Amino acid sequence: MSEAAPFQRVAVVGLGVMGGSFARALTGTAAAPEVRGWSHDADERRAALYAGAVMAAPEDLKEALQEADLVAIATPLQAACRLIADIAADTLARDATIMDISGLKAPVARAAAKAGVASRFVGAHPMAGSEASGFPASRPDLFEGAIVWIVAEPDAGAHSEKVEALWRSMGARPVRTSAQAHDRLMSLVSHLPQLAANGLAAALDDEGIVPGDLGPGGRDMTRLAASNPEMWAGLFEDAHPDLVRALRNTAETLQNAADELERGDVEAIVALMNRTRSWSDA
Amino acid sequence: MSEAAPFQRVAVVGLGVMGGSFARALTGTAAAPEVRGWSHDADERRAALYAGAVMAAPEDLKEALQEADLVAIATPLQAACRLIADIAADTLARDATIMDISGLKAPVARAAAKAGVASRFVGAHPMAGSEASGFPASRPDLFEGAIVWIVAEPDAGAHSEKVEALWRSMGARPVRTSAQAHDRLMSLVSHLPQLAANGLAAALDDEGIVPGDLGPGGRDMTRLAASNPEMWAGLFEDAHPDLVRALRNTAETLQNAADELERGDVEAIVALMNRTRSWSDA
Repeated sequence: MSEAAPFQRVAVVGLGVMGGSFARALTGTAAAPEVRGWSHDADERRAALYAGAVMAAPEDLKEALQEADLVAIATPLQAACRLIADIAADTLARDATIMDISGLKAPVARAAAKAGVASRFVGAHPMAGSEASGFPASRPDLFEGAIVWIVAEPDAGAHSEKVEALWRSMGARPVRTSAQAHDRLMSLVSHLPQLAANGLAAALDDEGIVPGDLGPGGRDMTRLAASNPEMWAGLFEDAHPDLVRALRNTAETLQNAADELERGDVEAIVALMNRTRSWSDA
Repeated sequence: MSEAAPFQRVAVVGLGVMGGSFARALTGTAAAPEVRGWSHDADERRAALYAGAVMAAPEDLKEALQEADLVAIATPLQAACRLIADIAADTLARDATIMDISGLKAPVARAAAKAGVASRFVGAHPMAGSEASGFPASRPDLFEGAIVWIVAEPDAGAHSEKVEALWRSMGARPVRTSAQAHDRLMSLVSHLPQLAANGLAAALDDEGIVPGDLGPGGRDMTRLAASNPEMWAGLFEDAHPDLVRALRNTAETLQNAADELERGDVEAIVALMNRTRSWSDA
């Protein structure tokens, strides 16, 4: 890498699977910045420090932010919105680029605008994650090859370019988009499959099926059932109307399939399968 | 392997992903039997022959069965039921063990009883497969480590033991069960996730989402949407009542989740997620 390092001192706020992986990936970049970490959870601060993911993990958020030129917020969505205001008010990180990596971009963009930091705020969302949670599940290569959606106001252009360069240095692929387009897409490609996995797992539970009974297909279909409710709660606060519509659509198709099976209308089931097979092949 | 080979001459009937993988796995066992293959599809016969999966692939089923001491039926379910009668009537395979590997065991057990071959019939169902179909998707290691459900009448005990030994020689793990217990379990751990994937994929299609838009979670949740409708049609002919019930249950949970999201009742969603997370951890 011949590029100059985009940031010299990064504060990673939140040291779960996402923040932890981000911190670990940072230390692997060609010109690794100094990385400080913060979490409300003392165990996570200790784990990140012992793993060498961060050079310091003070209990005090302000201390972690000191002289940072990038503050990376890696907490659940609602906490991220609150932290944007706290960080905006912190004089020791006055000129820092503020980035978050939560799964919806319109709420954080609103929080950044309200806190008066829209011109140095960059929303990022890496299309990578884990159904496991907490620092122990973090991996330095979590973002390798992953698309990272980037949302920033036009006047935050210089900050956005540096953030994109940082993601590229980790092997990720930043792609600019709008908060609106991003959030609709995520509601469908991420939130809808998540809830489908929850619905399926609950039905299996009701039938007395345990995960060990599943084959490879069933395991894939229920892997997300283990996802962290705390992380998701924030994403569901402002549910996108298209998520609600698509959930009802999915429910209706399954209801119809039950009726079809009951009356022995296998042709209708085959028609559904042919349709989704064509979709898969497209 | 010090065990004597359980079979000397195996006829594999059906050379798709399952039959093809079975034939290829056979040639990898310590004392590989002579393997003949048959398919109604000339391309598949040719492909299996050229790949060395079978030593012969005659057009005539009777020729493939000649002197076989094991006939392994690897076709969709309805075809398997028909073939059991054909094979039972074939004098050249009079004493052969007849095995099928389709996904439901009660219908084939009934077909074997009707054809008068229940005492030499062994139903097997390996918990392995592929959303791809056809011989080109076959793999010699498809069954390695996989559980193989074994269903046989008490007076087919000797045949069952030989079939189990054969699966073990391929690295699979045979487990005896009853047709009833097997079919209920499969309806829930395999058929239900299959239809959930179809329902989800259809909803994504309706929203204009293409597979390339998905992240890792969404990809896992829609992988089965590519499954072979022809193979599945037979399995859905005699749908288990518990599949119908569990499909309705899943649909209801998703419908409720849509309502909860719409009215901002995130706590109800979190309760669902906590429940399925506990189920996953169990």
